[in-house]
Amino acid sequence: MSIRIGILGYGNLGRGVECAIRQNPDMELAAVFTRRDPATVQILTEGASVVSVDDAPSWQDKIDVMILCGGSATDLPEQTPAFAKMFNVIDSFDTHARIPEHFANVDAAANQSGHVGIISVGWDPGMFSLNRMYANAILPDGSDYTFWGKGVSQGHSDAIRRIPGVKDARQYTIPVDAALDAVRSGSNPILTTREKHTRECFVVLEEGADAAKIEETIKTMPNYFADYDTTVHFISEEELKANHSGIPHGGFVIRTGRTGWEGENQHLIEYRLKLDSNPEFTSSVIVAYARAAYRLAKEGQTGCKTVFDIAPAYLSVKSNEELRKTML
Amino acid sequence: MSIRIGILGYGNLGRGVECAIRQNPDMELAAVFTRRDPATVQILTEGASVVSVDDAPSWQDKIDVMILCGGSATDLPEQTPAFAKMFNVIDSFDTHARIPEHFANVDAAANQSGHVGIISVGWDPGMFSLNRMYANAILPDGSDYTFWGKGVSQGHSDAIRRIPGVKDARQYTIPVDAALDAVRSGSNPILTTREKHTRECFVVLEEGADAAKIEETIKTMPNYFADYDTTVHFISEEELKANHSGIPHGGFVIRTGRTGWEGENQHLIEYRLKLDSNPEFTSSVIVAYARAAYRLAKEGQTGCKTVFDIAPAYLSVKSNEELRKTML
Repeated sequence: MSIRIGILGYGNLGRGVECAIRQNPDMELAAVFTRRDPATVQILTEGASVVSVDDAPSWQDKIDVMILCGGSATDLPEQTPAFAKMFNVIDSFDTHARIPEHFANVDAAANQSGHVGIISVGWDPGMFSLNRMYANAILPDGSDYTFWGKGVSQGHSDAIRRIPGVKDARQYTIPVDAALDAVRSGSNPILTTREKHTRECFVVLEEGADAAKIEETIKTMPNYFADYDTTVHFISEEELKANHSGIPHGGFVIRTGRTGWEGENQHLIEYRLKLDSNPEFTSSVIVAYARAAYRLAKEGQTGCKTVFDIAPAYLSVKSNEELRKTML
Repeated sequence: MSIRIGILGYGNLGRGVECAIRQNPDMELAAVFTRRDPATVQILTEGASVVSVDDAPSWQDKIDVMILCGGSATDLPEQTPAFAKMFNVIDSFDTHARIPEHFANVDAAANQSGHVGIISVGWDPGMFSLNRMYANAILPDGSDYTFWGKGVSQGHSDAIRRIPGVKDARQYTIPVDAALDAVRSGSNPILTTREKHTRECFVVLEEGADAAKIEETIKTMPNYFADYDTTVHFISEEELKANHSGIPHGGFVIRTGRTGWEGENQHLIEYRLKLDSNPEFTSSVIVAYARAAYRLAKEGQTGCKTVFDIAPAYLSVKSNEELRKTML
């Protein structure tokens, strides 16, 4: 029997989950749950239902894992504990500072109801966290570096869009090659914010807006741009649509460290992601962990878990025997 | 109380384990077990014992995890099951084709005695396997590529040393940059053996040996060199010692794959290792898994495990709470 998945929230992430389910033969999309009028939500999967979120409680025996595709600011802090009372759940909660609190809330709800909840799944937090953790365990004497990009930062794009006179904008975060090379050399560089990343902005102006003034406003914006070397390009709306409508992202998690009785040997562990679609890759990670949630729940486990708590084999469609034979 | 480690076999790997233990404050080296006369074995750690392997049975209550540092050809197939009857054990068994059989033997012994055995720990098998597995679970529709090097291949170096007229030799396996770039581009290239790696040999001749003939013998050696572009350099013994006495290695595990309803988006997952010392890095991975073996045994688990079966958090000296707070 297939693992029956529910999706709560049908934005970029929810659509990504829908696509990822199709690539996994042991899973099926049972229903998409929405806060909108279900009649207005068109999904891709034949045979799957679109249901009002208010009807979710009646789906408890028809869904094995509910994937929560809302935002971390306001949706998930409420939704994940609430749905963990009814379902095995997974989310991609990414407000790093609030993870301990979110974990505690989901853990209490999931333990009480006898479900499994896996939080903060994706690539950062998620695969980047895992790689940091493994690398730290292997090389206790070393240094960590994380670089993001090249990729679209929604937060920075939004910050530009809020400037009067800006019609639309897209911001790319770009890691500096020289900084990456310095890290890889093992020289343990101490890098400033400016040395690690540059920011490149593509801006569409409103009719009659003052380009020079807007460029100045962007480049001096505290927190977002002032600490970076920022480039601003003014382009037409058509150009933005044609060349900047994707949501690529990625980055590098690097640890360099020393071994040997006197630390005489140097090592580099580097994990890199280069993603055409940030939400679709995040969804793909989530769907692999949905398989884990299903299996853990079948074993009778309950409570909140993170990527650190889950043995890798739980993610794979292959049996442990097959994995040892083909992948070890 | 510290995790008390025993080392069986004091070659490059055993010495690497000894160095790695020193970097982990929750561990201590209790004893090195050797097949040699213990009086002739000089170790680095003050306070640790050197003991004949024949006396190992009397150390059962003084060792929490025994790390087996023998070879995969003849030592480990015997030693790991035998020692799993007395201790929690870890090995770096790397004969990929025989892993299922080795697993079954260790599993039977460890289950019977109530111990944990973790096999095939290191980087390949080990961290490379893990990264292949995670990447396959995340991107079901994709292609895998593994490149090795730049690094010393002991097997190929030995093959050269067996040629009459060769006094000593060192062989480096080198990944071809153009092949790496083609893979990273997402073009899913089908690469021949020759296109993926080159082989570079540094050879010290015996007095009066025929260099041209030896070069020809190397380059045409079936399995080892005939399918590769091979370069041979003849150097002096002093040069070999000065410039080629290290044991560097490393490589790349790459998966490219597609997501989206029509597979319209491309992704790259790349894991890279660049290691000054192959045995010391392998040892560092093993020691992290020794922590896992200790914890799993404390929980009452028994039997054989691989890196696929062990939740990442077991490797870390940090508590789960600390991990969530600092690494997620």
